[in-house]
Amino acid sequence: MDIATVIGLVMGMALLIYAVLNGGKFAWFVDYPSMAIVLGGAVAATLISFPMSAVASLRKVIKNAFLVKSRDLGKVIADMVSYAEVARRDGILSLESMTKDIDDEFVVKGIQMAVDGIDPELIEQIMNSELESLADRHARGKSILDAVTKYAPAFGMIGTLFGLVLMLQQMDNPDAIGPGMAVAILTTLYGAITANLFAGPLSDKLAQRSEEEQLLKTIVIRGVMSIQSGDNPRIVEQKLKTFLPPSARDAIEKKAEAE
Amino acid sequence: MDIATVIGLVMGMALLIYAVLNGGKFAWFVDYPSMAIVLGGAVAATLISFPMSAVASLRKVIKNAFLVKSRDLGKVIADMVSYAEVARRDGILSLESMTKDIDDEFVVKGIQMAVDGIDPELIEQIMNSELESLADRHARGKSILDAVTKYAPAFGMIGTLFGLVLMLQQMDNPDAIGPGMAVAILTTLYGAITANLFAGPLSDKLAQRSEEEQLLKTIVIRGVMSIQSGDNPRIVEQKLKTFLPPSARDAIEKKAEAE
Amino acid sequence: MDIATVIGLVMGMALLIYAVLNGGKFAWFVDYPSMAIVLGGAVAATLISFPMSAVASLRKVIKNAFLVKSRDLGKVIADMVSYAEVARRDGILSLESMTKDIDDEFVVKGIQMAVDGIDPELIEQIMNSELESLADRHARGKSILDAVTKYAPAFGMIGTLFGLVLMLQQMDNPDAIGPGMAVAILTTLYGAITANLFAGPLSDKLAQRSEEEQLLKTIVIRGVMSIQSGDNPRIVEQKLKTFLPPSARDAIEKKAEAE
Amino acid sequence: MDIATVIGLVMGMALLIYAVLNGGKFAWFVDYPSMAIVLGGAVAATLISFPMSAVASLRKVIKNAFLVKSRDLGKVIADMVSYAEVARRDGILSLESMTKDIDDEFVVKGIQMAVDGIDPELIEQIMNSELESLADRHARGKSILDAVTKYAPAFGMIGTLFGLVLMLQQMDNPDAIGPGMAVAILTTLYGAITANLFAGPLSDKLAQRSEEEQLLKTIVIRGVMSIQSGDNPRIVEQKLKTFLPPSARDAIEKKAEAE
Amino acid sequence: MDIATVIGLVMGMALLIYAVLNGGKFAWFVDYPSMAIVLGGAVAATLISFPMSAVASLRKVIKNAFLVKSRDLGKVIADMVSYAEVARRDGILSLESMTKDIDDEFVVKGIQMAVDGIDPELIEQIMNSELESLADRHARGKSILDAVTKYAPAFGMIGTLFGLVLMLQQMDNPDAIGPGMAVAILTTLYGAITANLFAGPLSDKLAQRSEEEQLLKTIVIRGVMSIQSGDNPRIVEQKLKTFLPPSARDAIEKKAEAE
Repeated sequence: MDIATVIGLVMGMALLIYAVLNGGKFAWFVDYPSMAIVLGGAVAATLISFPMSAVASLRKVIKNAFLVKSRDLGKVIADMVSYAEVARRDGILSLESMTKDIDDEFVVKGIQMAVDGIDPELIEQIMNSELESLADRHARGKSILDAVTKYAPAFGMIGTLFGLVLMLQQMDNPDAIGPGMAVAILTTLYGAITANLFAGPLSDKLAQRSEEEQLLKTIVIRGVMSIQSGDNPRIVEQKLKTFLPPSARDAIEKKAEAE
Repeated sequence: MDIATVIGLVMGMALLIYAVLNGGKFAWFVDYPSMAIVLGGAVAATLISFPMSAVASLRKVIKNAFLVKSRDLGKVIADMVSYAEVARRDGILSLESMTKDIDDEFVVKGIQMAVDGIDPELIEQIMNSELESLADRHARGKSILDAVTKYAPAFGMIGTLFGLVLMLQQMDNPDAIGPGMAVAILTTLYGAITANLFAGPLSDKLAQRSEEEQLLKTIVIRGVMSIQSGDNPRIVEQKLKTFLPPSARDAIEKKAEAE
Repeated sequence: MDIATVIGLVMGMALLIYAVLNGGKFAWFVDYPSMAIVLGGAVAATLISFPMSAVASLRKVIKNAFLVKSRDLGKVIADMVSYAEVARRDGILSLESMTKDIDDEFVVKGIQMAVDGIDPELIEQIMNSELESLADRHARGKSILDAVTKYAPAFGMIGTLFGLVLMLQQMDNPDAIGPGMAVAILTTLYGAITANLFAGPLSDKLAQRSEEEQLLKTIVIRGVMSIQSGDNPRIVEQKLKTFLPPSARDAIEKKAEAE
Repeated sequence: MDIATVIGLVMGMALLIYAVLNGGKFAWFVDYPSMAIVLGGAVAATLISFPMSAVASLRKVIKNAFLVKSRDLGKVIADMVSYAEVARRDGILSLESMTKDIDDEFVVKGIQMAVDGIDPELIEQIMNSELESLADRHARGKSILDAVTKYAPAFGMIGTLFGLVLMLQQMDNPDAIGPGMAVAILTTLYGAITANLFAGPLSDKLAQRSEEEQLLKTIVIRGVMSIQSGDNPRIVEQKLKTFLPPSARDAIEKKAEAE
Repeated sequence: MDIATVIGLVMGMALLIYAVLNGGKFAWFVDYPSMAIVLGGAVAATLISFPMSAVASLRKVIKNAFLVKSRDLGKVIADMVSYAEVARRDGILSLESMTKDIDDEFVVKGIQMAVDGIDPELIEQIMNSELESLADRHARGKSILDAVTKYAPAFGMIGTLFGLVLMLQQMDNPDAIGPGMAVAILTTLYGAITANLFAGPLSDKLAQRSEEEQLLKTIVIRGVMSIQSGDNPRIVEQKLKTFLPPSARDAIEKKAEAE
């Protein structure tokens, strides 16, 4: 999981706990019916907004996007170049034995197709089709998180309005007004936290992780196509490095010079 | 009706009922004048914003979009391919007898025109004209739902302001202040629920159903044109599958291989 | 006047009256100084935002857009086709006697220029110039209504702040607090009603009426140009019908077949 | 100064005075510390947002945009045409003596350059450079007014929060609560007035005055270039009139016919 | 540091201190837990939204953008022209001794590469790559400041909701209600100040400083390329001045004429 996400979430949670215990009791801030209204309402509105299949894939999207470790693009390029060297030196079939040691299934699938002598156009089409699926899944995941960011505070307000009506209808007991009002406010609080500490920031990070992943897959596709066509490893490297931002390109060059 | 919509609506309604009964009485949350102001106001503003014909067609648009079952595009393509096979084997006229068993009127109309030997350009024009009408109707339906999403909370606030003035002008009886305020708040509550549980999410889903329907109709049009021109069924299949997203394309291919 | 606009306005006004009388007195909701602040403020801000000429033309734009009856485009096309028939059968000069019976001055002006033998390019230029003026006037009218939609609630809030200060500075008499607060709220109420029942929805409808009017004038221009160049009436009809949305095109075709 | 701006500002100020005196005292609404917070805060935020040079030029932009009288474009075109007649009849050098009677320095500068026989391309470049500078200054002026429109209400809210804290910390004296709250509200009131009666509407009008001024300068540039190249005055008129909106074009034509 | 930024920040801080001391005590407005919630929450949400590397570079971006003095573009152009004169008179190698006196490392690097006889295309590529990195870093810095502008007020509201719940749950002691509420409001106040006096305006200025810096670097790149290719110093000047806004161009020309 991305270290900044972990730090941010831990820090945010710690702050909330600190805010609760800073002069108050835990029980004052935990109200299960209020949670049900905010989260349930946001989920209900999201279910009405999106087809079932999109919502169902959200869990997987989030898991992949946040738990899969960010990969070093320079390392990926170096790997692709080394495969190109093997293919050029010992023939493309010699790559088959190497695929067992490769972690990334997408790379394995691409190299396997190249080894199997599948038509290059078809290889590219199949790999691009996976890239498109990935981008689609991420975009849909992001728009679901955006819907939660929008509907959680809305149902927070709805819950508070419910609580206010309840409180206002039972003003006989003055002692109950304060706590009644406190509970009414909790849904707004839950809605604001859901939107501003979870759904909103996660949606932003998902967009950035998606770009990273797509760049990675694009580099792999370019690499496999170059290997398949028997390009010189130096040319493979040149081609792949054009996908990197300038600063990353410099870093690789320096490392290369140091070698 | 789309299963996610049903679940979302049922879940949302259940939550509202739960919120009401969670320490309160049903009567506290039901106020017909308040409902009249919110819904009536939103309808009035919408009527002023749109021509009558657009508003009148809303009911039909919603019914079609939500009650008509989502169709399996792979199945539609398979059907079109099987018609192409019949047309190629037994001649296009033999399709006439098959139209009795086809549910989708749009497909029947297209095939009937092909069987009748109507000029291909005219067939395409007539079918595209229906596709455009459908997209227009859906877009107008969506913009009406968007207007309701905007005006329901606005009239909720207007209703609450009315209620506040009423309450503030009659502060002689302290016991009436609480309930008076509670009733005033109800319009804001109704407005928020209308926008966030009904009109807003339904507008989003309508946009997605519309895209689905247009994709379906586009596939049917392409299919009928291919059948009419006597294309090889395999080519018909290739052409139609280009309209599918990559994941769906894979699913069909796997099924085809399994056969 | 557009029937939906009438129904919407009547319905909205009826709701407001109902909301007032529903447990209150008319006098509680009518405060002339409050009206002066909201409407005066919105007008003042609009005058500062736009040149005088634009504001002055607003009344005429609204009158034209809402009182002029929506025209049946199919009827307009049928008329243009019948003029084309007369021109082709009896010569273009014979149209001169017909212009007395035509209501639409724009059509009369166009036909008169064609009869007078004015250069076609010049006819088109003059008619297009009127079309552009119309679109300009409508767009400016819409942006003024949009300014009112924005500034009426703003001055509603400003008025309420004034009222709150007045009330808070005179808290000696507890009995006056309620009514003072009630009056303070009225400006916010007026601002919300002005924006959500009048200026906002009327701005939307003006945009739609403008599109309709421009389509109508475009059809007339095309028609006059066709008549002037002596086109076959059937071709005139074909040309003009391409401007209609598909559903309207079908309706005309069915009528034509029925004849 | 534009008459609508004057009327709007006078009307707005009159409304504010009326709102103050309508049952209150002037002193209740004037609080210099509150003014300092709202205006000072908006100015501080604007200074941080823009470079010094942009802020420094604002006063000049506003003065030029609002105090310089709007010019009659038809009159400007007629003037340019008359210079073209003189230049064609008596030679371009004879224009030199006329420049003393011309008010607009931009016209004088352009004609002087034409008289001096400066290369046409250079004349155009120099004049266009002034036009660009003007548009730049106006655009920057507008974005500064937009920043004030955004930050004045923000610091109004900040001031009110300060006032609320002050009031809440000194609740011992119940009589001071009302006036304390009243003063706290004043900053929000000042912020709303600054944004909705001054900065916001002036920003809109500045945009419109800028367009007018640029159109005027464009016409002058075109005119000077035509005079310099010795165009026929009738052709100069034709060329310049293409810059006018259709309605203004008609007005000139009618006047010409009447002569 | 940009003088307007300094004045704006000092003025804003002075206003806040004035607002605090204007009838209150410093201690009423300083609450460390409240600060922790607002700033901590904004930082946590920002960390979740962005990758670690982007957040880590923010400090450097802000330091560079605000502490590095704005440079006079006319001076930069004059310097580049003088280097071009030296290179043309004494040969490009003679520039090597001059680089010791040049402050701007980017200029030194460019000239050094030209002196070293590196391929012009490569020089341009390397310098452009630094320009792109700079623009990227600034854009990321700006989007982080924008996130703080969005999340600081959000956590201000969350903190106030926490405070309200605390206060409402402990209403036994009426004397504590006022101060409790005052503390609850502080987080909203901190959030508003963070967004409207710091993060928001700084984000705007960063965008403008970034444009300035990019223009400067672009001029240097053009200049080095011209020097490398041995252009006439007058032509170098002409080329570089096209990057200046018209007003700045005039200023240089006047200075040149005066010499």
